[in-house]
Amino acid sequence: MARGLYVGRFQPFHRGHLETIRAIRADEAREELIVGVGSAQDSFQWNNPFTAGERIEMIGRALDEARIGGCMLVPIIDIHRHAEWVAYLEGLLPVFDRIYTNNPLTRLLFEQSGYTVTDTPLVERDRLEGTRLRSRIAEGQDISGELPPAVVRYLDQLNAPARLALLRAERNAPPESDRP
Amino acid sequence: MARGLYVGRFQPFHRGHLETIRAIRADEAREELIVGVGSAQDSFQWNNPFTAGERIEMIGRALDEARIGGCMLVPIIDIHRHAEWVAYLEGLLPVFDRIYTNNPLTRLLFEQSGYTVTDTPLVERDRLEGTRLRSRIAEGQDISGELPPAVVRYLDQLNAPARLALLRAERNAPPESDRP
Amino acid sequence: MARGLYVGRFQPFHRGHLETIRAIRADEAREELIVGVGSAQDSFQWNNPFTAGERIEMIGRALDEARIGGCMLVPIIDIHRHAEWVAYLEGLLPVFDRIYTNNPLTRLLFEQSGYTVTDTPLVERDRLEGTRLRSRIAEGQDISGELPPAVVRYLDQLNAPARLALLRAERNAPPESDRP
Amino acid sequence: MARGLYVGRFQPFHRGHLETIRAIRADEAREELIVGVGSAQDSFQWNNPFTAGERIEMIGRALDEARIGGCMLVPIIDIHRHAEWVAYLEGLLPVFDRIYTNNPLTRLLFEQSGYTVTDTPLVERDRLEGTRLRSRIAEGQDISGELPPAVVRYLDQLNAPARLALLRAERNAPPESDRP
Amino acid sequence: MARGLYVGRFQPFHRGHLETIRAIRADEAREELIVGVGSAQDSFQWNNPFTAGERIEMIGRALDEARIGGCMLVPIIDIHRHAEWVAYLEGLLPVFDRIYTNNPLTRLLFEQSGYTVTDTPLVERDRLEGTRLRSRIAEGQDISGELPPAVVRYLDQLNAPARLALLRAERNAPPESDRP
Amino acid sequence: MARGLYVGRFQPFHRGHLETIRAIRADEAREELIVGVGSAQDSFQWNNPFTAGERIEMIGRALDEARIGGCMLVPIIDIHRHAEWVAYLEGLLPVFDRIYTNNPLTRLLFEQSGYTVTDTPLVERDRLEGTRLRSRIAEGQDISGELPPAVVRYLDQLNAPARLALLRAERNAPPESDRP
Repeated sequence: MARGLYVGRFQPFHRGHLETIRAIRADEAREELIVGVGSAQDSFQWNNPFTAGERIEMIGRALDEARIGGCMLVPIIDIHRHAEWVAYLEGLLPVFDRIYTNNPLTRLLFEQSGYTVTDTPLVERDRLEGTRLRSRIAEGQDISGELPPAVVRYLDQLNAPARLALLRAERNAPPESDRP
Repeated sequence: MARGLYVGRFQPFHRGHLETIRAIRADEAREELIVGVGSAQDSFQWNNPFTAGERIEMIGRALDEARIGGCMLVPIIDIHRHAEWVAYLEGLLPVFDRIYTNNPLTRLLFEQSGYTVTDTPLVERDRLEGTRLRSRIAEGQDISGELPPAVVRYLDQLNAPARLALLRAERNAPPESDRP
Repeated sequence: MARGLYVGRFQPFHRGHLETIRAIRADEAREELIVGVGSAQDSFQWNNPFTAGERIEMIGRALDEARIGGCMLVPIIDIHRHAEWVAYLEGLLPVFDRIYTNNPLTRLLFEQSGYTVTDTPLVERDRLEGTRLRSRIAEGQDISGELPPAVVRYLDQLNAPARLALLRAERNAPPESDRP
Repeated sequence: MARGLYVGRFQPFHRGHLETIRAIRADEAREELIVGVGSAQDSFQWNNPFTAGERIEMIGRALDEARIGGCMLVPIIDIHRHAEWVAYLEGLLPVFDRIYTNNPLTRLLFEQSGYTVTDTPLVERDRLEGTRLRSRIAEGQDISGELPPAVVRYLDQLNAPARLALLRAERNAPPESDRP
Repeated sequence: MARGLYVGRFQPFHRGHLETIRAIRADEAREELIVGVGSAQDSFQWNNPFTAGERIEMIGRALDEARIGGCMLVPIIDIHRHAEWVAYLEGLLPVFDRIYTNNPLTRLLFEQSGYTVTDTPLVERDRLEGTRLRSRIAEGQDISGELPPAVVRYLDQLNAPARLALLRAERNAPPESDRP
Repeated sequence: MARGLYVGRFQPFHRGHLETIRAIRADEAREELIVGVGSAQDSFQWNNPFTAGERIEMIGRALDEARIGGCMLVPIIDIHRHAEWVAYLEGLLPVFDRIYTNNPLTRLLFEQSGYTVTDTPLVERDRLEGTRLRSRIAEGQDISGELPPAVVRYLDQLNAPARLALLRAERNAPPESDRP
């Protein structure tokens, strides 16, 4: 069975991500898609507010809601060494033969290793941009147009606006520091 | 939705593992089960011959063959610090509320954190023991009684007997050494 | 015996830190206070100029001078994974039951784990701010109003102005680089 | 002020350790002694059953009971690179000028760096040996002759025999494994 | 035999580096010079576009072309702990007794350890500055005046302008991210 | 230019290693040979007594003495993840196209990546075996038949018998432990 691989940080998982996965799954109906949740070790930071587990939860709920099947959700801890990125994923994940990405560096690294790389559609990129969405959540604004309904509900359950407001205010103060 | 967690190294995934998962899924039909593939960073060692990706592949095929659904397969990289093990899994994985294990240390660590821990059945433990199975594979013996048919076929495809024979012979010689 | 925990980087230890500890010790006279020296692995950087050992030395001298007892000074190496921060400290330190902090993220992480968290007073925050104090030291300005006398003398002994001037000038040039 | 340094794993802290510290403090009454708790990252293993925090607790109680003052207890996380061991401790700890050890490797590494190294007395070494003591605790035997009374009481409070019996039985089964 | 040590990141290796090495070798004709390639673990980043291996290759070709002998090229992986930097290099490298650097922090750390530190000449520093050179390469400009001819040819062979243009555009998007 | 790669730990560098390199260089006179010094982070352990720098020194002297040129000596820090071993070396080292090894695991990993792997001759393997040689050195026996003369002299200069005797006696006592 052929599999695709699509990696992101999904902080949070928004409609652009969902439409990307829907398009991949529609186009390649016979494939399974590995959805890699990157920077899995990071959480409770302004740029990475949600744990890998929370991100897997929100993605799973959004895919269920959208009735998109055939996805395997996997947390991926960073290694921070780009030259070993492809080999690391090859060891961590079941065999895949196609990469879906709009990140040129990812494209370069996988093409160097002989993989087929496919562009992902950019869905309303300006509006569906991670930093902008985190800011809107932190400010308590309505993001129901940008996120799948299941994610909106889950973020509400997590009390996400309070967490994000806190992390934005303290973005230079990790817990090992006394004061910002 | 409630989820269970069952962690092992699965080197290889044998009938005991399969029956454990079948029993969990039968008993708790409403739950999803996270199957954590431990020591995910290790491979090509005598005690850990298969990569995390290969182990996910063999488990997935065996579960499909046995028509067992509702399992989420996740690679788990070791942190080697037991006091942080529960917190690490809580961050890495979606929420779970029950642990299935026959490892007393796992039981202790999770009970200290307030989790419900359930024993797993020990299916023919002497026969279905990892080291014994790896030795039998390395010796080219028939292990079709011990492993699910899908795993037997997959190991054949991986040319597992040759790999295991090699790793057993060189178990003191990592690749950074010139000679055993 | 009940213990409190107060974590900071203390680069350098200033009068605000000292007054915070004095207030904690006065208020909770029966408790021991663990003073955690965070980012203990960092030194000789503009944001972290002093080693953990030097910081323990300056704190110890300032507490002696101020006749504040009952403090245990402990270096704490970063783990950079916020989801495991509480579990990490629980393993590293003797039992504590109260956290003193004005860092909202620290508050959030410890409250999630069921701890009592107490605000620390902010003593002249604008004036007693780490970056500002490091700049003043680097410029050779008088900081005797901002630091405890014992710290002033110790920084003099360390030849701190020269070190800080150097680190400020070269803040983009770690020792593995040839030139800034 | 001159300081000494004495590093051990203290799994558990026994009467030999206590008498060593008493002798150092008696002989060098003017010095402070840093007691470094080594392998601080390890716990819940047969060779390292107690967390660093638990070891600091038991040492602190034993020193209080014996009315030995002037000791600074510090957890020390391993770096596993012997060539950097001295430099690592120099950065982590306040200045020390004398090492107390009966470990010839420690002696060698510190003497190479110009430190004064002093032998520690070996108090009933055969009887007061870590592995033997852990075995006796695991077997529920009386160890009140080998451990300071405060440590005996603290281990009782920790339910140490159960933990040690468990860790001895499962010494090849870390929590990432399903079965021993 | 006495040896010198000269450490840089060499992203890329330019004429200033070459003239520095030429001057060291001319002045100290009897010495061998260790050329340490720092941040060896980094590559495919805007600030560190080339792998350690590529940097060793370009330096080796440039030295051959300039007929400069007696250099030992060594990749040096960062440890990110400045207090251990000298001890780390002492363990990793054959004995050296002189450091060549214009980095004041390197000077400070090595002088503290008793080494002789010699300034390196700054050759046209504004023009031969790493970030500026990387920008010029990314823009496809002529850099034959700034780099040794062998490096110009090697970068051409690596298709460096395309790599650098890509890394500059995506400098906030590591491969674990889906989109910049 | 084509290059070969030969990796070992060289604890110590003995006549078998020297004859292997001589044979490679004789057979492939046009190639450069990268001699990788593995487990470079380890030293002052019974299995890894010498630092990477000391091993580079002894190899360099032995090659000079034997008038074998064209070798590039490189320390290689372990990554302990076999699935990434080839990618790691590809990033760390200049391009190589042939591996010399008698380690079947190394052969397997490189062949999987498409490299040409060549067996190295086993020169008196029983006699020239690392553990045996370290034991003989620790016992003060004559090893002038087993080691190149330059290595014999260098080990004498290092006072190697005393170091090895110490490490053999204390092989279970790292410096973070108080007593063996």
